[in-house]
Amino acid sequence: MELGKVVGTVVATRKDEGLKGRKIQVVNLVNCDMSATGEFVVAVDTVGAGVGEVVLVVRGSSARVTTGMSAVPVDACIVAILDSVEIQGKRVFDKARDL
Amino acid sequence: MELGKVVGTVVATRKDEGLKGRKIQVVNLVNCDMSATGEFVVAVDTVGAGVGEVVLVVRGSSARVTTGMSAVPVDACIVAILDSVEIQGKRVFDKARDL
Amino acid sequence: MELGKVVGTVVATRKDEGLKGRKIQVVNLVNCDMSATGEFVVAVDTVGAGVGEVVLVVRGSSARVTTGMSAVPVDACIVAILDSVEIQGKRVFDKARDL
Amino acid sequence: MELGKVVGTVVATRKDEGLKGRKIQVVNLVNCDMSATGEFVVAVDTVGAGVGEVVLVVRGSSARVTTGMSAVPVDACIVAILDSVEIQGKRVFDKARDL
Amino acid sequence: MELGKVVGTVVATRKDEGLKGRKIQVVNLVNCDMSATGEFVVAVDTVGAGVGEVVLVVRGSSARVTTGMSAVPVDACIVAILDSVEIQGKRVFDKARDL
Repeated sequence: MELGKVVGTVVATRKDEGLKGRKIQVVNLVNCDMSATGEFVVAVDTVGAGVGEVVLVVRGSSARVTTGMSAVPVDACIVAILDSVEIQGKRVFDKARDL
Repeated sequence: MELGKVVGTVVATRKDEGLKGRKIQVVNLVNCDMSATGEFVVAVDTVGAGVGEVVLVVRGSSARVTTGMSAVPVDACIVAILDSVEIQGKRVFDKARDL
Repeated sequence: MELGKVVGTVVATRKDEGLKGRKIQVVNLVNCDMSATGEFVVAVDTVGAGVGEVVLVVRGSSARVTTGMSAVPVDACIVAILDSVEIQGKRVFDKARDL
Repeated sequence: MELGKVVGTVVATRKDEGLKGRKIQVVNLVNCDMSATGEFVVAVDTVGAGVGEVVLVVRGSSARVTTGMSAVPVDACIVAILDSVEIQGKRVFDKARDL
Repeated sequence: MELGKVVGTVVATRKDEGLKGRKIQVVNLVNCDMSATGEFVVAVDTVGAGVGEVVLVVRGSSARVTTGMSAVPVDACIVAILDSVEIQGKRVFDKARDL
């Protein structure tokens, strides 16, 4: 999976039936230290993530294993909102401290 | 998923049975600010997107979850025509304004 | 999907059962203007493409959705031989004209 | 598959049901000589790998073939803890010697 | 699929059940002219390839379509040992001549 920060939303009236009613968000991918990788992905959110939150993104067919997504043409889903990331014993991200 | 702009079409007489009757389009991938990434993908269109429109592209096996695509050898589908993209509260793309 | 030009063939006596009798080709990936991307892929051909022809390549599990490929360990298939590519109303590739 | 070194962990309270109770780790991908590639992946650990250990990571839908993962939205799993890597007859990594 | 040269092996005692008894090899990916791409992949060998041999590697879910691999968490398999590669009518690789 990949780490990312939710930065925005995408609105589309004309879309595949499976995408109706889904919240489609823009996620900037980040490194472990929360610096931007310069890449982004458009993902369906299933955990209620808001702009600014650090999330876990799952890609590929596994995105369809996310709850309620089996019949949705989606290749990226937000599957978790992160509380913290710890690298080599150091807390590099802490939601309560950093957001 | 990825954002892209439809720029053209591909015509092929000799092709896999599953691709017969499909509209195959060339999509230039774009960043959130609609600048070109320099990459493109050839995708089957299922939502009636025209050249110039900004679309959402789904890749991999999920492309086959798009309506009517389950038996089609396709790894990229246009699944939505975008109305708008909002990043950090700013409308970076608005179909009515920008196209 | 991706655009490519067939440039050669691969021969292997010792191989997985599923690959027996398959034509395995080397495809140089190209941009829309037919310039080389510098990347190539080894793909199973199912439409009878010859060296020099411009083709459409499908990747991943969708390669196995190509006719006759469901039990073949293949992650790339040639699924179409292109007649033409039109970008922004300009014919950038025309088989009858360019080959 | 890819080689990596476990460097940390990710904690998330709000997450997809399938991820509940899973150990989610940060893995820095490494080359055969154990030098860092500069890339990392967030993976679910199913073999009990600890920080500092060199592991094998499987990606994509195959991550869900890992024991107990079939209904989990996961695109990367740690599937082995490496004892040694031998390249051209030279032992480039040996857990007993190097860790 | 991709071309590669087998350069070594990986040994792991603690691993997913599905990987038990499998030969896990390190494969350096090569271009058509057999020059190294600088990338490598760890793949399960099912055709008895030895170090130094030029092989065909299949990736993703298709690796599990390789004989005996359906329940194995593997995203890359060696599916053929190459005899020759011919590009633009020129034999760029010939096992009998080059190895």
